[in-house]
Amino acid sequence: MVALDLRFAAPGVTEADWRALEPEVLTAQQQLFNGEGWAQGGSGWLHLPSATLRQGLDSLCTVADELRAQADAVVVVGVGGSSLGTQAALAWCKPAYYNQLPARERGGPELYFAGHSLSAAALRDLLRVLQGKRVGLLVVSKSGATTEPALAFRVLWSWLVTHVGQAEACRRTVVITDAATGALRRFATEHGCRSFAIPADVGGRYSVLTPVGLLPLAVAGVDVQQLLQGAADAESALAVPRLDDNPSCLYAAVRNALYRKGKCIELLAYYEPAAAGLAEWWKQLFGESEGKEGKGLFPAVAGYTADLHALGQYVQEGRRLLFETLLHIASPRSGLALPTVTGLSDGWDDLAGRSLGWVNELALLATEVAHWEGGVPCLRVTVPDQSERSLGQLFYFFELACALSGRLLGVNPFDQPGVEAYKRNLYALLGQRGREAERDRLWAMWAAAQG
Amino acid sequence: MVALDLRFAAPGVTEADWRALEPEVLTAQQQLFNGEGWAQGGSGWLHLPSATLRQGLDSLCTVADELRAQADAVVVVGVGGSSLGTQAALAWCKPAYYNQLPARERGGPELYFAGHSLSAAALRDLLRVLQGKRVGLLVVSKSGATTEPALAFRVLWSWLVTHVGQAEACRRTVVITDAATGALRRFATEHGCRSFAIPADVGGRYSVLTPVGLLPLAVAGVDVQQLLQGAADAESALAVPRLDDNPSCLYAAVRNALYRKGKCIELLAYYEPAAAGLAEWWKQLFGESEGKEGKGLFPAVAGYTADLHALGQYVQEGRRLLFETLLHIASPRSGLALPTVTGLSDGWDDLAGRSLGWVNELALLATEVAHWEGGVPCLRVTVPDQSERSLGQLFYFFELACALSGRLLGVNPFDQPGVEAYKRNLYALLGQRGREAERDRLWAMWAAAQG
Repeated sequence: MVALDLRFAAPGVTEADWRALEPEVLTAQQQLFNGEGWAQGGSGWLHLPSATLRQGLDSLCTVADELRAQADAVVVVGVGGSSLGTQAALAWCKPAYYNQLPARERGGPELYFAGHSLSAAALRDLLRVLQGKRVGLLVVSKSGATTEPALAFRVLWSWLVTHVGQAEACRRTVVITDAATGALRRFATEHGCRSFAIPADVGGRYSVLTPVGLLPLAVAGVDVQQLLQGAADAESALAVPRLDDNPSCLYAAVRNALYRKGKCIELLAYYEPAAAGLAEWWKQLFGESEGKEGKGLFPAVAGYTADLHALGQYVQEGRRLLFETLLHIASPRSGLALPTVTGLSDGWDDLAGRSLGWVNELALLATEVAHWEGGVPCLRVTVPDQSERSLGQLFYFFELACALSGRLLGVNPFDQPGVEAYKRNLYALLGQRGREAERDRLWAMWAAAQG
Repeated sequence: MVALDLRFAAPGVTEADWRALEPEVLTAQQQLFNGEGWAQGGSGWLHLPSATLRQGLDSLCTVADELRAQADAVVVVGVGGSSLGTQAALAWCKPAYYNQLPARERGGPELYFAGHSLSAAALRDLLRVLQGKRVGLLVVSKSGATTEPALAFRVLWSWLVTHVGQAEACRRTVVITDAATGALRRFATEHGCRSFAIPADVGGRYSVLTPVGLLPLAVAGVDVQQLLQGAADAESALAVPRLDDNPSCLYAAVRNALYRKGKCIELLAYYEPAAAGLAEWWKQLFGESEGKEGKGLFPAVAGYTADLHALGQYVQEGRRLLFETLLHIASPRSGLALPTVTGLSDGWDDLAGRSLGWVNELALLATEVAHWEGGVPCLRVTVPDQSERSLGQLFYFFELACALSGRLLGVNPFDQPGVEAYKRNLYALLGQRGREAERDRLWAMWAAAQG
């Protein structure tokens, strides 16, 4: 299971500080499990792993297998929570350069992501690489109307219809959206596309273990049963109402203690590039859950050891306003023995025969101690290995910790009112009916601010 | 040229605040150009663009052409400044999925990066994708002994020798290191490898316009002449000693004014995924130059609009401790007209025939106003287009601004003493001779902190 090591957590905060939060965190946990107060909406993820395992994955795996047979390349169209969890799991579970491997080494079709920016160049480049391939589309949007995926889907759908005709395009498209309402639901019904529902009480950033993540991951050949099993392990283990035996409660308490002592940035650092996607998923989870009402830790990520040669100087000697959470994989996917090379004499000859994995492990300890001695509190989150099961544990560990942490902060961790502000402006600027006055105001502001 | 728009910069700071810094910034600029005081070491990048153009790129382009003919895939082995600038320019200048395109569309061999982590899995995955290709190595390290590239080079060199023999491996390897000293220089001499020198007075994070960046970029078919020309444009334009006519001086003044008013995070946001690498380069440039003596803005990056669905909530409504710098490309590489799609009815039908580039442009304005109204100062940095020349301008604009900004902050922007701390610990843990006492201290600390 996920373990939280706090031996280097202490500069500027003491164990007594986080222990003092035990009553608060246990109350929050109890309310969450009982569906009381703040926890009444948006906590559908809480028993999702065990419920989904009981229900079985047959229909999802059937559709995944059909898509695997139909397509050389599948494009997942989605933004935010409709994309980040899938990207995280794909990078964690599959080799780097996945799309470049021969089909039999990949274990699934190529997988691409679209609808997560408004860049025309990015979409053009994607169409270029899809050329000549049998393409499937997996479009993910709860409302069915989010700008980025909606526009990308128009382009990709239209491209697919042009290449294979409407009937075949319908057969190669799977829709994941609200069970009953919205434009995508209507589209799926009218076109006879296969579809899955996003549960109403599961928010986007908590949706990776719904069909949103499970379907594309099953398409890529990720063992989604094991992923769910890991989350179910955590669901069971993290129901314990004791700080010392519950890493999610502990993490929520420690990060709030650090926040109350004046830390304002949490830096999630990882030592395997395969965890980069998980870090991005974490950034959304915590940033969107906690960054409201003028509060919240700013979530930042660092890919070590690369970022030790970039952000490292700041972490070691810059302003003392951050703490670090080091993501540690106890048994990484590969060791790789270092070869003997003659004629280099760079001081590293003694390492011949040693494993590079061992060096990376020591680099984690070296950093942890260096930063701690530099005044940076360091937490260490350890998972056993880089398997699907460990990832499932991590997803659930962070989800639960985030809900509790948001509650300790005094905000609703399940809403995201601030995301609407730029959308409202964009709708007005794009000329949506009924927003003309707002559009005029924005352009006037732009002109006037010229000064 | 690069333009800096400050019309939405003002919440919490006023024009008078940054104008008050004009004398300081102009003094710093003068000292830099005269090589006085703080600016005596590490300012070799200042006239590098014009000097390199005068000198010509013949020998560099000759070696690049040789490598293009010799190799299907080239691996750049380097970390930090030996890698980030090259990655930035490659992503900016070349299409996405570059390595997956057919050779004639790429315009150069495939390009990979290694030696920027200690992950064995990442290196294994790289070796897997190199299988069966004619591979060239481009190893970049000023000292020749930095752990990450040194260990990756051992693995890759050994792999190459096994596949093609030592003589051919020597012919396919180019070394970029110090002109006279270090293990890699000796290695190049003894093995007869082609090599280039990194100028002694140019630090890693300022080295993209030396052979460190120019050689691999020329190999990939990037127009390095235009890249340098852009930097030379900026070198000339940004020598002007007036705040109003010098965006680098202005940017340095404004970000220091914001810092002095209590902002502690600068978020660099971009709207084209092709700028992601540039943002990572920027993060190193500013983080390593300013994060010292307990000071500095924490540099964070955001890829919009994706991150509007992740960090966006925090930016809009979280703690008011950050400001944003929006990177704006006036004429992006592609427009892409939105198609007419029947049967979607998602509210976006009116956009048929419009350009996606236009929507992205409006999204930038929509965000800028939303965040500004939410109390976030927003600066806008605009370049004309996504060309090599514009990128050269941006590189130099940020380099100069960073040097001046660090000086306003009262630190030496050209050193990085804090990067040594984790290295010292790592050397000790790896068992380097003479560091046994330090190694024992570290393990004892690890055991004792267990508590």
